[in-house]
Amino acid sequence: MTGIVERHTSPVAPVVPRGGVFTPLGLDESRLAGGFWGERQELNHDAIIPHALHWLERAGWVGNFDDAASGRPYEHRGMEFADSEIYKIIEAISWDRARTGPGGADLHAHLDAALDGLVDRLAAAQDADGYLHTLFGRAWQRPRYSDLSWGHELYCFGHLLQSAVANARAGANAKYLQVATALADHVCVMFGENGLRMVCGHAEIELGLVELYRLTGVRRYLDQAALFIDRRGAGTLPRIEYGSAYAQDDMPVREATVLRGHVVRALYLSAGATDVAVETGDAELLRVLETQWANTVATRVYVTGGMGSHHNDEAFGLDYVLPPDRSYCETCAGVASIMFSWRLLLATGKSRYADLIERTLYNVLAASPARDGRAFFYANTLHQRSVSVPAPVNADGLCLRGASSRREAWFEASCCPTNLARTLASLGALWATKDAEGVQIHQYGGASVDTVLADGRRVGLDMETEFPHAGTVTITIRESPGTPWTLSLRVPEWAEGASVSVNGVAEEAAPGVASVTRPFAAGDTVVLELPIEARFVFPHPRVDAVRGCVAVQRGPVVYALESVDLPHGWSTEATVVDVSKPPMSDSDGVRVHLSSADSPARDFPYSVSAADVAPDLAASAEVPLTPYHDWANRGPSTMRVWIPTSPVGTAE
Amino acid sequence: MTGIVERHTSPVAPVVPRGGVFTPLGLDESRLAGGFWGERQELNHDAIIPHALHWLERAGWVGNFDDAASGRPYEHRGMEFADSEIYKIIEAISWDRARTGPGGADLHAHLDAALDGLVDRLAAAQDADGYLHTLFGRAWQRPRYSDLSWGHELYCFGHLLQSAVANARAGANAKYLQVATALADHVCVMFGENGLRMVCGHAEIELGLVELYRLTGVRRYLDQAALFIDRRGAGTLPRIEYGSAYAQDDMPVREATVLRGHVVRALYLSAGATDVAVETGDAELLRVLETQWANTVATRVYVTGGMGSHHNDEAFGLDYVLPPDRSYCETCAGVASIMFSWRLLLATGKSRYADLIERTLYNVLAASPARDGRAFFYANTLHQRSVSVPAPVNADGLCLRGASSRREAWFEASCCPTNLARTLASLGALWATKDAEGVQIHQYGGASVDTVLADGRRVGLDMETEFPHAGTVTITIRESPGTPWTLSLRVPEWAEGASVSVNGVAEEAAPGVASVTRPFAAGDTVVLELPIEARFVFPHPRVDAVRGCVAVQRGPVVYALESVDLPHGWSTEATVVDVSKPPMSDSDGVRVHLSSADSPARDFPYSVSAADVAPDLAASAEVPLTPYHDWANRGPSTMRVWIPTSPVGTAE
Repeated sequence: MTGIVERHTSPVAPVVPRGGVFTPLGLDESRLAGGFWGERQELNHDAIIPHALHWLERAGWVGNFDDAASGRPYEHRGMEFADSEIYKIIEAISWDRARTGPGGADLHAHLDAALDGLVDRLAAAQDADGYLHTLFGRAWQRPRYSDLSWGHELYCFGHLLQSAVANARAGANAKYLQVATALADHVCVMFGENGLRMVCGHAEIELGLVELYRLTGVRRYLDQAALFIDRRGAGTLPRIEYGSAYAQDDMPVREATVLRGHVVRALYLSAGATDVAVETGDAELLRVLETQWANTVATRVYVTGGMGSHHNDEAFGLDYVLPPDRSYCETCAGVASIMFSWRLLLATGKSRYADLIERTLYNVLAASPARDGRAFFYANTLHQRSVSVPAPVNADGLCLRGASSRREAWFEASCCPTNLARTLASLGALWATKDAEGVQIHQYGGASVDTVLADGRRVGLDMETEFPHAGTVTITIRESPGTPWTLSLRVPEWAEGASVSVNGVAEEAAPGVASVTRPFAAGDTVVLELPIEARFVFPHPRVDAVRGCVAVQRGPVVYALESVDLPHGWSTEATVVDVSKPPMSDSDGVRVHLSSADSPARDFPYSVSAADVAPDLAASAEVPLTPYHDWANRGPSTMRVWIPTSPVGTAE
Repeated sequence: MTGIVERHTSPVAPVVPRGGVFTPLGLDESRLAGGFWGERQELNHDAIIPHALHWLERAGWVGNFDDAASGRPYEHRGMEFADSEIYKIIEAISWDRARTGPGGADLHAHLDAALDGLVDRLAAAQDADGYLHTLFGRAWQRPRYSDLSWGHELYCFGHLLQSAVANARAGANAKYLQVATALADHVCVMFGENGLRMVCGHAEIELGLVELYRLTGVRRYLDQAALFIDRRGAGTLPRIEYGSAYAQDDMPVREATVLRGHVVRALYLSAGATDVAVETGDAELLRVLETQWANTVATRVYVTGGMGSHHNDEAFGLDYVLPPDRSYCETCAGVASIMFSWRLLLATGKSRYADLIERTLYNVLAASPARDGRAFFYANTLHQRSVSVPAPVNADGLCLRGASSRREAWFEASCCPTNLARTLASLGALWATKDAEGVQIHQYGGASVDTVLADGRRVGLDMETEFPHAGTVTITIRESPGTPWTLSLRVPEWAEGASVSVNGVAEEAAPGVASVTRPFAAGDTVVLELPIEARFVFPHPRVDAVRGCVAVQRGPVVYALESVDLPHGWSTEATVVDVSKPPMSDSDGVRVHLSSADSPARDFPYSVSAADVAPDLAASAEVPLTPYHDWANRGPSTMRVWIPTSPVGTAE
């Protein structure tokens, strides 16, 4: 086993690059305090993490490790990637521990104990050579690495490594990092320059290896990650129905111009490749990844920030193929999109990456959990036509993935709840960064930031806001060195007409970044005013699936028409919005002018006469919309984000 | 083994009910003669059937039977339902033999020999108790009936029975019917009143059992089919990801109001249930099935007649979920839809069933085969955005199912080519029927009909037409008893303004049925004039996916915009049709007025400004459309059936 060569007192954060434009802050430096996201971090601690721990035991996925350690044959429970859910929940607990800090020790004791118990059990299942997976390699199981397209072995390893790094940075269980380094060393031997020249069907190991390198300084982990990045795209994975693009094995990372295939795979790969580019100083690779991000966001992203247009292969569609009713928009894809964007933001400093993070936070991540944190959306559709529930696939009543009008307690493929948990726990890290000149604020919500600039100057500030419910963000300087430094505020792409006031003196601030450089004094206030009136959003004409429709957005929050808000007898499927009257927004919410526009069923849903299929325009009303992330929280409902503007099928 | 109780001199046709409004004609009574479909029957004989025979050997699916007969362990080739492809090609050869008649004996000798060879080989693999499937039941295989959701055992049996009935009616191989009755007897023992109270995941056995009953008069086959129909819907099938509706196991057949789940399963089940309803005189069941058909056609059918909106589960979508770009419209679903409609037409005499058959023939079945009969569409999309090819899944380069801009020679799941072959071979049976009063013509195309009415009167006629290229159908009476009888002509639902002339005297004929009753004399002519000018077709406003678009139809033929017909630099993805100018149609084809309407890519495909996403309306031109069934025959192309009418995303 490779010893730990080097320890850094790096930030307690998920991504700690050794290069790039911005330096991340640790969860002890950037803390959320109440508000939209602070409340969700509490929900995560109080409900989501305990709920996940319960189900990981109940479903037998932790038990797989016990059985593996026993040495006796057993029937593996769950999907090929069930191991990874345990790793992700350990990561979540680790970040949650860092977030609550020493002051939260009492509150956190039971989670720490759960974590230690999990580490003991998974460590007992590790083979002598470092290999650790509960589905492969034993005499009665399939051989190791015999199913790289679907087996998820290296994928699970990657989550273990990320999780162990989190745990090490948060300062908890020493044993876990030993498990991780032994596993990483095994991977470097098996898949190194002289090993198997193959990749895993699901990218993820790359992220874990780079982060372990960042933690330990052991270069071979970085080299191995770079090898995996360079190897992909040679078509070495076994053929599958969905084609080689599914696992991004259709072309080298460096040759691709847009993301394609399975969305989470594509985004994890891109995030890992960004890590490699940053650590190896590979500017060309970084440029390619920025281009892929830009082309993807230009043509393959839903208005919610969600990604994935196909249920069939959980994949990106072609350019502009963004059907709202078949939007997959997996919660994990939202997590993965943030992972990719965050790495590009740190590397390049460009605010557009934080813009997409914001959109994804409010409209994908916030949409997944139920208000009580004990049920989740796996897919996040933009149009739910029926009040449906998913089909159960096992005796526990679990569905495989679920795409319906109901959040589910758990899934047979339950990647999303644990991914959500680790992201919510580490959310503070996304709020702010620093560089030599000062501090950058990327997201808005109650928070406090305390950090030390590179030259040793201490800076502290508090952010107060009811954002996204209101547009005023007040930042109060709490600690300042007395010498000039720069406070940079992202002005979101949707915030045309924003202003920044310093101690009461306002200036216009265009979308992008507004920076204030001065010798701030404690008590100075910087107020960002964001215009958050609700507005119609129009689609690019190539988005065939929403032609003749509009969406409504208020600040970063996308709204939806939900059946429970409609007058009696109306349907989300037969309603037209009047775009000549702008949406109204006030403290009561957002409302639009709608007309009921039903059309009787015909023998055949097509006619040579446009008049035959013209609907009856009936009553009109002002109807409230629901924040998309909050839909399906008031009983079964139908819902649509894109609302037709024209009552008839054509422009006639 | 149950002996053959009774033999009827029934028509040589796929469906020969003992009740119902119309009596089918045999392939020796209703023969196609040239024209659109006659040519395709020749292509079937010359190319499609030999091509399928070649691939069934090459892929090892016939070899599975040889291996099974050997008694030695072997690796099964192909999908669970590979056996059925052999049965379907035997059925195709049988009908093709009947179609060509004694005069075609020389032409048919090689196919008859192939058929005999296949029967010998499959018969050798039959177990002593009648069971016959190459994937289950041997010591090294999974047990019989251990995977009813996916195993396709009874499904394969059903195809064997249908095929053996075809073969018996066409008068060929005596051994095959023995195989079939032994197998049917096995099924009746295993799944009878005192047997396994289960159903097959894929309906089909019901059709085979009823037709075997119709051939043999053995009532237990009908009773067993009725049992299977009544048993389905109790949720007895093992749980699967797609839910119990996938295999129509979510509710009893008698309680459903619309088709749902896997399309081919739903349609085969409905066709089998219709057979049971007719043979048992179950008017209530027949009424339910008519309602299901009507609701399905009103809300879940593409303008092509295609069915199936999901790739994921090859399933119907909800009402009005008919996205053109994800239309699955499997070729087999087209075959199955015709099977269901044909049975309802025979049972009820209603012309609307023949209307849907016509639409499906011209726009689904005709679309599948390449012009040379050696490549096929499996899925029949209505919108192909990219020039793509399917991913190969095996060493032969076969794709699993294929959905692309290219027809494929064969598929790993190659149900469609053999289904097409048996349908083309037996197409003549769909052209005409008889009842006590006379003859009914249901489809138009060069043909001759010679039959004997119930009272012994002989009737003969010839139909000449260039339909669907022209609208004139001339029927010349060749043989008539001299006493009055009725010639009924279907007037298609699209043919508003049609007329019927008898010996030159014209009368208007509304859509539905036009009947002429008289003591026809040889040489009398009846001319049906169908108005086939091209027209725009408008969608029902609930079909979200084609809002603001029109299709073009000429007679029953749906047209498509194909990239190879566009001016240089235009794209099917950025083109708008001018609906104020009706489509032009003449002997050169169909043309519409189009404008190139491109819109530059933006950073994000949505904007709060409608103007931002308005396209540049550039050049206009008259552009030819392609008959949808003929697309992708001039090299790689993109294509769309539904063309946007409005250049901007909203009605503004």
